[in-house]
Amino acid sequence: MARLDSLLSPRSVAVIGASPDPHKIRGALFHVLRKNGFAGRIVPVNPSYRDIDGVPCFPSLAAAGEPVDLALIAIPAAGVLAALEECAAAGVRNVVVISSGFAEDEGAPADLQDQVAALTRRTGMRVCGPNAEGFHNEPGHVSATFSPAVDRDADDNPTATANRIGIVAQSGGMGFALYNRGRALGLSFSTVVSTGNEADLTAADFLAHMAEDSETAAVLLFLESVRDPAAFAAAASAAHAAGKFIVAIKIGRSGPGKLAAASHTASMAGWDVGYDAMFRRYGIIVATELDEALGIAAALASNPPARGGRVAVLTVSGGAGAWAADALVAAGLEVPELGAATQAAVREFIPSYGAARNPVDLTAAGVQGGGMLRALELLSRDPDVDQIAVISSLSNPARVSIDGAGLAALLAQRLKPVLFYSYTLPSMFGRRILAEAGVVIFPSMAVLATAARALLDRGRFKLPGPVDSMVVPDAVRTVLSSHSGPLAEHAAKAVLAASGATVPPSRLVTQASGLADAAAALGFPLAAKIQSAAIPHKTEAGGVRLDIADLPALEAAFADILANAATHAPGAPIDGVLLEPMAARGVEIIVGIVRDPSFGAVVMVGAGGVATELFQDTAYRFAPVDEAEATAMLRGLRSAPLLDGFRGAPPADVSALARLVAQVSRFADATRDTVAELELNPVIAHPVGQGCTIADALLVLSPAGQPER
Amino acid sequence: MARLDSLLSPRSVAVIGASPDPHKIRGALFHVLRKNGFAGRIVPVNPSYRDIDGVPCFPSLAAAGEPVDLALIAIPAAGVLAALEECAAAGVRNVVVISSGFAEDEGAPADLQDQVAALTRRTGMRVCGPNAEGFHNEPGHVSATFSPAVDRDADDNPTATANRIGIVAQSGGMGFALYNRGRALGLSFSTVVSTGNEADLTAADFLAHMAEDSETAAVLLFLESVRDPAAFAAAASAAHAAGKFIVAIKIGRSGPGKLAAASHTASMAGWDVGYDAMFRRYGIIVATELDEALGIAAALASNPPARGGRVAVLTVSGGAGAWAADALVAAGLEVPELGAATQAAVREFIPSYGAARNPVDLTAAGVQGGGMLRALELLSRDPDVDQIAVISSLSNPARVSIDGAGLAALLAQRLKPVLFYSYTLPSMFGRRILAEAGVVIFPSMAVLATAARALLDRGRFKLPGPVDSMVVPDAVRTVLSSHSGPLAEHAAKAVLAASGATVPPSRLVTQASGLADAAAALGFPLAAKIQSAAIPHKTEAGGVRLDIADLPALEAAFADILANAATHAPGAPIDGVLLEPMAARGVEIIVGIVRDPSFGAVVMVGAGGVATELFQDTAYRFAPVDEAEATAMLRGLRSAPLLDGFRGAPPADVSALARLVAQVSRFADATRDTVAELELNPVIAHPVGQGCTIADALLVLSPAGQPER
Repeated sequence: MARLDSLLSPRSVAVIGASPDPHKIRGALFHVLRKNGFAGRIVPVNPSYRDIDGVPCFPSLAAAGEPVDLALIAIPAAGVLAALEECAAAGVRNVVVISSGFAEDEGAPADLQDQVAALTRRTGMRVCGPNAEGFHNEPGHVSATFSPAVDRDADDNPTATANRIGIVAQSGGMGFALYNRGRALGLSFSTVVSTGNEADLTAADFLAHMAEDSETAAVLLFLESVRDPAAFAAAASAAHAAGKFIVAIKIGRSGPGKLAAASHTASMAGWDVGYDAMFRRYGIIVATELDEALGIAAALASNPPARGGRVAVLTVSGGAGAWAADALVAAGLEVPELGAATQAAVREFIPSYGAARNPVDLTAAGVQGGGMLRALELLSRDPDVDQIAVISSLSNPARVSIDGAGLAALLAQRLKPVLFYSYTLPSMFGRRILAEAGVVIFPSMAVLATAARALLDRGRFKLPGPVDSMVVPDAVRTVLSSHSGPLAEHAAKAVLAASGATVPPSRLVTQASGLADAAAALGFPLAAKIQSAAIPHKTEAGGVRLDIADLPALEAAFADILANAATHAPGAPIDGVLLEPMAARGVEIIVGIVRDPSFGAVVMVGAGGVATELFQDTAYRFAPVDEAEATAMLRGLRSAPLLDGFRGAPPADVSALARLVAQVSRFADATRDTVAELELNPVIAHPVGQGCTIADALLVLSPAGQPER
Repeated sequence: MARLDSLLSPRSVAVIGASPDPHKIRGALFHVLRKNGFAGRIVPVNPSYRDIDGVPCFPSLAAAGEPVDLALIAIPAAGVLAALEECAAAGVRNVVVISSGFAEDEGAPADLQDQVAALTRRTGMRVCGPNAEGFHNEPGHVSATFSPAVDRDADDNPTATANRIGIVAQSGGMGFALYNRGRALGLSFSTVVSTGNEADLTAADFLAHMAEDSETAAVLLFLESVRDPAAFAAAASAAHAAGKFIVAIKIGRSGPGKLAAASHTASMAGWDVGYDAMFRRYGIIVATELDEALGIAAALASNPPARGGRVAVLTVSGGAGAWAADALVAAGLEVPELGAATQAAVREFIPSYGAARNPVDLTAAGVQGGGMLRALELLSRDPDVDQIAVISSLSNPARVSIDGAGLAALLAQRLKPVLFYSYTLPSMFGRRILAEAGVVIFPSMAVLATAARALLDRGRFKLPGPVDSMVVPDAVRTVLSSHSGPLAEHAAKAVLAASGATVPPSRLVTQASGLADAAAALGFPLAAKIQSAAIPHKTEAGGVRLDIADLPALEAAFADILANAATHAPGAPIDGVLLEPMAARGVEIIVGIVRDPSFGAVVMVGAGGVATELFQDTAYRFAPVDEAEATAMLRGLRSAPLLDGFRGAPPADVSALARLVAQVSRFADATRDTVAELELNPVIAHPVGQGCTIADALLVLSPAGQPER
């Protein structure tokens, strides 16, 4: 039993206000439920009718006798609360509220939806919605929705995949569109749920149900915003543990809502890095298109795991093969030359103007005698091929270029993923033959390539292990809790040093007379930087001088810096000027912490300098991360080649960087109640064995009494 | 009359070896031609038959009487030359050679295709192919192909667009796949041509024909490689002049074939920057997917021009609207808030839980009384909206949420582009109603967004004007023609200076004793760089010292540099050490020239430092460019914000940069016979009014006697 079975697999369903008119929503709910073969008891409730289509109709729920598992409500918003009270009084266990006019409605009473939520808490009755489109449980024959997408009579699509996919959508239109398009691709589904405004049950609740539901092999999500991140994380983790993959479309990325923040990290990150970190943590695959999400789901649901990213392309058109190779390479896969033995074996049954290299062009003549299946057999047994992409034309209404039964037998061995694309639109005949062999035909070459990449990524994914908490020294806790807003760099570095990070040697100088001593201790060349909590962006304030070569230059720089600060921020309290030896050159990286308003501490690494911002070359993970995960973050940057010794430079000390990133992430996790932002920018990575230098640090404390999450 | 009319609109067609068996290619050619209603004379040629299906069959072309305009050849390759000779002797004007087994065939005689080409030159007879799939001229009812895609009986697709599109494909499979998928979208076509191996007629020839052809309003290209760039450019220019747009899919981008070259510019560029420059020059829109190419073509063919990129989204699903906004913003468009008047007008006919902002969510209830058309009218007349995206569900088999006649009347006014997407798969009913109004339903949200972007780009496109040639001084010509391979930096800079570019002051020092004088003339801090034609990458050789502060440091650097050079490149001839004042800081840019093997001189600008290579932040144009085009290149970089004064830096002297880029491009154009590569890396742009500094220059001359194109 999965947790929401009494809602999604009810034994009895009441339709409040049921109508014989199928053009009304209340009528459609009744009719769709019946038509799609619900085997339990249907209880129409409407004082105006004695029966509807022969089913006895009751004047009230109370009159209906024993309590129902599920009631469907689609009456106007103003009557919903009273109807819910009646449901609760009648012992109804679950309600789907279709009615609109709640939190999404500017004209609705402000607390109407809160009253619904309060009612569910008070009574224990669970509510899906309001403003939901209901759900469709396909194997259970429960169609509790007015969506025309679930009309089985209109569905003549062949079914290709046996593994059923669940859909949880915060937009009913999109949820049932996924179902509609998925059926056309040949996918089979367990339950499609529209979660509406989520006054009670959330997307996380339904995801948790599907993680337990034996009919559901995988889950498609259409998300606008996750209301309960901790519950969502637990559900995603449970799905992973049950071997079920998740594909998510997350919308609302283009809207306003960037965080106003002092650090570049936070201002750049926007409000959805928490989602990116969440998806990454649990191996949730992100899609941006309906057909892309469905294609990825189809590939994962109908294929064995991929051992790697070496793809053999099998085609009957040279142009299609070269194009497929482009698409696959663009998606990060390889299309390597095939081994000599495989090529020779293919050569045996294709004409001389075909190609036995990769892409393999069998030509139209080459497939006539069963060449497609022969080639597929050969490639399936070639240990140097991880996946196979078959690119052909399936538009012929009466013929396909492969033997269906032979294909089914080969694919049943589950040797490796085989992905099919037809450059012409596949005929119903072609779709049927391939569906019988368990094959989904991808809607585009790009979706095929993305799906092949998802197979690769899923094969490599591992849930990160737990990371030890950091014990923050009491002295640091005291500093953090006794300030608010930005700390000056020297104070931030003191905090980091006390927390175990290595910071460069430095002197804070307040008077020109102290310069000579400090310089003698540190050695030229020096960097000099204004120190004031009121000046978080020192360079913009003219508060930084680099490469200071001698004492006269240092004295001049000191005077300049203080003068600039006085102009830039008149009256700002100045702690002094921080002197540090110029760091040796190296690869510059940014390390930062963002407090996502929903998800909490997220650690970021980015390409140094301006590249982080201009090219969005960043990686985000939930804090804390261990050193392995930190290394993966660094290696995942597009600028990672810089770390390996780009253009003759020595390789950088990636393990020192990873140590620092892990440390910072644990610090962020441990100080979530006080530290609002942290940015080390740049961190300079020196050659292997020589560590890294935190050249600058910005630490912003939460306003007192307003701890961040 | 367009140039290839006698081929593509023949009055008579002979089928060599015609067969009554439609399963043979030679039979299919005959049958498809007849079935699709060819109105001219069909001449089957086969000594085995007296007639085929009642059409008199001739033992030879000569026996057929008057010369035919077009002969179709699909006999085995070994017999093709003889058949072509017979055609020429019989006065045949054009031949399509379907037969495979020529240049694409490893086993074929090496010169077989060359003999075909020679025959066409000798006789004047034009040949399409070999290894072609033929063509289909839809308005002319000429189906000279065996492709099943052109079977009109199988095509029950409604037609939405009146403007016919031509297809020129170097892959027959892909060309007819574009036709097949385009028909399903409701596009109408003029002629689809498969160009095969292009022994004679090339893609450029067919493009030139379509530029002239009155039936063709636009052209779709599927390209593997352009054999005659100059002819292609002329054809593209003619199409543009005729007001016809071109959408191109260019494949083969992932293959091997990167240029081996000394400069980063050239080694990075790979072999297809010439295509990018070509497409950019003529406003050719690049697509990577069949449906994307078709969607762009549909948008441009069925809509008035877009005045801008402000898109109003009209939907019945809040989730779909927010998702559409994401997709549009990701494609570089705006989804701005609507004006108060428009919002108020929309509010009048939608429920309170709908949204009158952008995206406009009419809700299902809001469209019932004709709300969709009303909203469309309002947005069509709102001067602050440039394009409209309608996102709804068209899957209902008997109903659509908009009045078709009203929609047709509104769209006939051609007020602004209106693009439709159905998140569910559209029913045939929905497709018909919208097609009658001239509407193509886009296959995905991403394609809709890409098409909206193409409308914006096409609205802004202008063919660049001619650029004056540079007169290269004789002294420079002498230097260029008397060397080969790389020049040392000082020599390259001398060439640039003599050609009109501003280079920094410098001294070439050969003896330590000369350092003091040079330093006194230039002033500290200095940069010192090894000068040797054998050491093009000076930094990697330890041959560069920067920020040299005084004479002792300079003397040490001089010695180090020479010692490193001796280690790095023992025995290399050393010209000396070049001293230059350290350039002031600024924004770093790379300016380079690539000699594309097919297209000639291409000028590149890229983000400075490693970003060019790591993030491919580059722009390519044919050389020469004027300053306006150079400015557009710089402004088009993702790192362009750096030029505008990023993070408080002063804005950079973009006009000085653009002047330099234009100058370099004219130099490259004028020295195409001698200069193989040129790279200025970095060029440092100083604040506005302070110009830019060519910090380093690499110039590589073609080997003597091997001028580059």
